[in-house]
Amino acid sequence: MRNFDQNSITQAVLERVAAAPDTRTRQISEALVRHLHDFVREIRPTQEEWAKGIAFLTDTGQMCTGARQEFILLSDTLGVSMLVDAINHDHQGAVTESTVLGPFYVEGPPEAALGSDISGDLPGEPMYVSGSVAAADGSPLAGAIVDVWHSDEDGYYDVQHSEDAADLVARARFRTDVQGRFHFWSIKPAAYPIPHDGPVGKMLEAQGRHPWRPAHVHFMIAAPGHEKLVTHVFVAGDQYLDSDAVFGVKDSLISDFTEQPAGTAPDGRTLDRPWCRLTYDFKLNPASEAAHRAA
Amino acid sequence: MRNFDQNSITQAVLERVAAAPDTRTRQISEALVRHLHDFVREIRPTQEEWAKGIAFLTDTGQMCTGARQEFILLSDTLGVSMLVDAINHDHQGAVTESTVLGPFYVEGPPEAALGSDISGDLPGEPMYVSGSVAAADGSPLAGAIVDVWHSDEDGYYDVQHSEDAADLVARARFRTDVQGRFHFWSIKPAAYPIPHDGPVGKMLEAQGRHPWRPAHVHFMIAAPGHEKLVTHVFVAGDQYLDSDAVFGVKDSLISDFTEQPAGTAPDGRTLDRPWCRLTYDFKLNPASEAAHRAA
Repeated sequence: MRNFDQNSITQAVLERVAAAPDTRTRQISEALVRHLHDFVREIRPTQEEWAKGIAFLTDTGQMCTGARQEFILLSDTLGVSMLVDAINHDHQGAVTESTVLGPFYVEGPPEAALGSDISGDLPGEPMYVSGSVAAADGSPLAGAIVDVWHSDEDGYYDVQHSEDAADLVARARFRTDVQGRFHFWSIKPAAYPIPHDGPVGKMLEAQGRHPWRPAHVHFMIAAPGHEKLVTHVFVAGDQYLDSDAVFGVKDSLISDFTEQPAGTAPDGRTLDRPWCRLTYDFKLNPASEAAHRAA
Repeated sequence: MRNFDQNSITQAVLERVAAAPDTRTRQISEALVRHLHDFVREIRPTQEEWAKGIAFLTDTGQMCTGARQEFILLSDTLGVSMLVDAINHDHQGAVTESTVLGPFYVEGPPEAALGSDISGDLPGEPMYVSGSVAAADGSPLAGAIVDVWHSDEDGYYDVQHSEDAADLVARARFRTDVQGRFHFWSIKPAAYPIPHDGPVGKMLEAQGRHPWRPAHVHFMIAAPGHEKLVTHVFVAGDQYLDSDAVFGVKDSLISDFTEQPAGTAPDGRTLDRPWCRLTYDFKLNPASEAAHRAA
């Protein structure tokens, strides 16, 4: 175990990590070493480039706070998050497709009653969202947990303005009714650049890429016996649908947010200005399939 | 640019980063995406495993301080640092071999006169170090900068106890005399575990590995017209020479730290107890060769 050259070093590290008592740890460690060393042998970094790489990873970690997850942004912008998503959700259209979680989900969002307006004092075009949650065979799922979160009309999330729980807005947890239905009011979200004032923003700039995502509403839906669904519904017609910075768009997740004139909404609310309406029905994958795939 | 599956996502990201205006940035980005996606496709992580990976990288970044560089430790323990070293220093024995920088180098170490004792108040066995710095053809290099740093007898570096510049010890910058020679006093270093109270320590434990490095003295040597040499001299006979946690040992860098009885040292100092002596002659690579390889 001495005098390694640029080829024998890989075998030496593989022999070392082969001691991992846990099979999965060994498998991941061995694959990491092989692919990481292959990458390094291909690019042949100078010591200065290696040091830049170390500094980039360090800066990415140090950028993370309770409200900012720069490594998720890195994973998202390198297409890794969507790759992991594809590996874990190869449903071929039977149930609602999934997409990236993104960095702005907050664990345990505020509970809200069906029909609530979750837009607080935010300015913007009123948006009425309604839909249903069902099993793959179409049978409604009552009491399903529906977490929603989305950007404001300037493209910012609540947690980008304040980390205080009292300032959460355009974010809530609903529970479907006995017919598996939900509805709520908010404001129409806007397209936005992912946070690009950190290392990932510098990477995108160096790669000649824009940081924009098409406008969307996030949904995370959970029901007993079913796989948790993490997805978005995108606003049809958005200019960034074909160049999403995180590669998250799927045709089945694009929906018209139909423009409505001033007047009475389906829940009886009277609006003195135009508003928009999103209707989307979700179907969840049975949990057994997820367990089967993981095995 | 929509509806990617676990194979087409890679091509989509490659097309995006192909816009990088700088050729080298494009080359590194494309290789990173290919190897990273291949790694992910091989291990097929669950969403929970992916989240653990994000958390591991985040913790690694957040562990870094002015005196602790956890990403260098990660690179070292995965053999990447020695791989980069091998790629950049394929000298085949003509000049002194290099090894890892490690995480404890301090930019601009305190200048010390030749013959100084740099051990401060540290307890330990006195160590007399002498040697020379020469070009590849053996011609002496006067005025070469010789930075040295090493652990104390408990295996700790100064910066692990204090980040205060006034507390630096067992660390100095010397300049060779007109014959290219240097000499100084310190204490004999000990084998030590790399800092393992962070994410990298947890990784080593999960991989069934020990964190120990064989005892050594670090040298960084610079002279005009020559490639900077980053290396160690290891203590012959150390029990960890064949299982260095960072894969840094080369036979040519192992030297006897010969035990000496109490008495008079080569520089006239009188010692009332046993001491040890290290003698090592360094040869530097011409800078032109380094520039050639980088081209």
